[in-house]
Amino acid sequence: MSTRIEIPVHLRWSDMDAYGHVNNVDMMRLLEIARIEAFWASETSTHHTGILDASPGSATATFVARQEIEYLKPLTYKRAPIIVELWIGHIGGASLDVCYIIRDDTHDGSTPTIYAQAITTIVLVETATNTPRRISAQERETWLPYVDFPVKLRHRRRSN
Amino acid sequence: MSTRIEIPVHLRWSDMDAYGHVNNVDMMRLLEIARIEAFWASETSTHHTGILDASPGSATATFVARQEIEYLKPLTYKRAPIIVELWIGHIGGASLDVCYIIRDDTHDGSTPTIYAQAITTIVLVETATNTPRRISAQERETWLPYVDFPVKLRHRRRSN
Amino acid sequence: MSTRIEIPVHLRWSDMDAYGHVNNVDMMRLLEIARIEAFWASETSTHHTGILDASPGSATATFVARQEIEYLKPLTYKRAPIIVELWIGHIGGASLDVCYIIRDDTHDGSTPTIYAQAITTIVLVETATNTPRRISAQERETWLPYVDFPVKLRHRRRSN
Amino acid sequence: MSTRIEIPVHLRWSDMDAYGHVNNVDMMRLLEIARIEAFWASETSTHHTGILDASPGSATATFVARQEIEYLKPLTYKRAPIIVELWIGHIGGASLDVCYIIRDDTHDGSTPTIYAQAITTIVLVETATNTPRRISAQERETWLPYVDFPVKLRHRRRSN
Repeated sequence: MSTRIEIPVHLRWSDMDAYGHVNNVDMMRLLEIARIEAFWASETSTHHTGILDASPGSATATFVARQEIEYLKPLTYKRAPIIVELWIGHIGGASLDVCYIIRDDTHDGSTPTIYAQAITTIVLVETATNTPRRISAQERETWLPYVDFPVKLRHRRRSN
Repeated sequence: MSTRIEIPVHLRWSDMDAYGHVNNVDMMRLLEIARIEAFWASETSTHHTGILDASPGSATATFVARQEIEYLKPLTYKRAPIIVELWIGHIGGASLDVCYIIRDDTHDGSTPTIYAQAITTIVLVETATNTPRRISAQERETWLPYVDFPVKLRHRRRSN
Repeated sequence: MSTRIEIPVHLRWSDMDAYGHVNNVDMMRLLEIARIEAFWASETSTHHTGILDASPGSATATFVARQEIEYLKPLTYKRAPIIVELWIGHIGGASLDVCYIIRDDTHDGSTPTIYAQAITTIVLVETATNTPRRISAQERETWLPYVDFPVKLRHRRRSN
Repeated sequence: MSTRIEIPVHLRWSDMDAYGHVNNVDMMRLLEIARIEAFWASETSTHHTGILDASPGSATATFVARQEIEYLKPLTYKRAPIIVELWIGHIGGASLDVCYIIRDDTHDGSTPTIYAQAITTIVLVETATNTPRRISAQERETWLPYVDFPVKLRHRRRSN
């Protein structure tokens, strides 16, 4: 079984900024869309990893603690959905690191263009107390098959 | 002289998501707003660091190569502008690392709440050739007083 | 043949505001997405009405001259795409009135919930001169089968 | 006393779309920003019309029932805030029509460029019951001095 979850995400024309590329901030929106699709529960979900009931008003909320993204190629609007490839780089006590590759959908086996790579640390928060809560045994078991080496970001900052 | 540039940024009510906090992606929008205010030229600019003519159609464009952000406290909408404190963590040949702290504006000398810390690598691109261009001597001289140690991000990912 | 074009549009979780509904402004974004899908040319378009090459840099641009929208029910995020039903209320010399109904997708013949109704006047602009250009005979012929009575907006303002 | 409330609103560079103009949908965002500034209560509000406690979780919410906007000139990003001029076209039992002109700020008495005109119908909703609630006597008295003829939208749709 592949450790990767592939989420097709539809761009919006308005994701482009005045430079004519999908704006750097809106690229991070694509990550959020894919992450919610992959991990949040929904009656129409197609991913069995979607077991978090994290809607507003639910017992659990997912907070983003940190994000790191590397932009490799400018992306322009197109109608065919792009693919956000997504896996787990680390499962901690109350948090997980989600890794992403944003790329073209290729149907013919050719090498897809990669637009960005990223990693997000998500913390599960108990909404009643507003404090982190532990990842349950069932959550861990469901997600474990999708754990793999974290995405290798090419350019690292020098010092800290 | 302080090495920090302080940019007041107005939140929008719609920056909040259904959790009632400024959305993690929109927090990065605040960085973009402050960065443009600080570095792009404008007849109404109040910062002498604003010497980049990077508007669409100009000879130079600024591309974001990577970003890293750490969220420390949830931010909710308020009318008083928040402050994006901004400095340069590194000046390279064709790129600069911009460091940020997003915090409250305090007028009474009290310690402000810090909502997020971030670092962005910006590349100067020559639009005619769509390739990176060197930072000019004048740009370097203008920005040098704002170079300081890069922002210390508290939580680091473990492995890569 | 139906005069209606049905465009499935994916909501984004971030379309909701702090009230937990798709924000009134973002509802208009859904109209823009459907309109571009229906009228702009694309190699992957599935609608033969998509004959406008209106991308940035093309000979034609589409400008919005006016919009009117009526909100009937609050819409909350869901994964299944909503349907934007779209037709033409009027074809003028250089403009067209696009009418919309934003509704649920129903597969069982039941009456769908309608969230909003709207009308937009689009002007075709020649980008070389930045002035309106006439709708061509081919465009008119392509779009004529989709002309129908304009959407009936229920609540009208009293005086002007 | 003038019946107009003038709200300066800061554009964001990202409000521009790939055409290089503030996007038609984002123009409506400017209306929302000005409306919240004018009518919602806040400890830092500068307008005595700001008496609605309509934050999420409050007893009252403001719902948008309909909107109509006319775009007169393309607006491009600039740092100086634009002015949203705002008044009340009608006060009903549970709703009010807010009228707007989006224009340049002119300091020298010259005629400002007008970018858009609009009208929004706002309904006050009691959040406990999720039904419209009557405008109170105090609200009516506070807002009455700002009632004037509704904005005259130039282009009207032909038939309905």
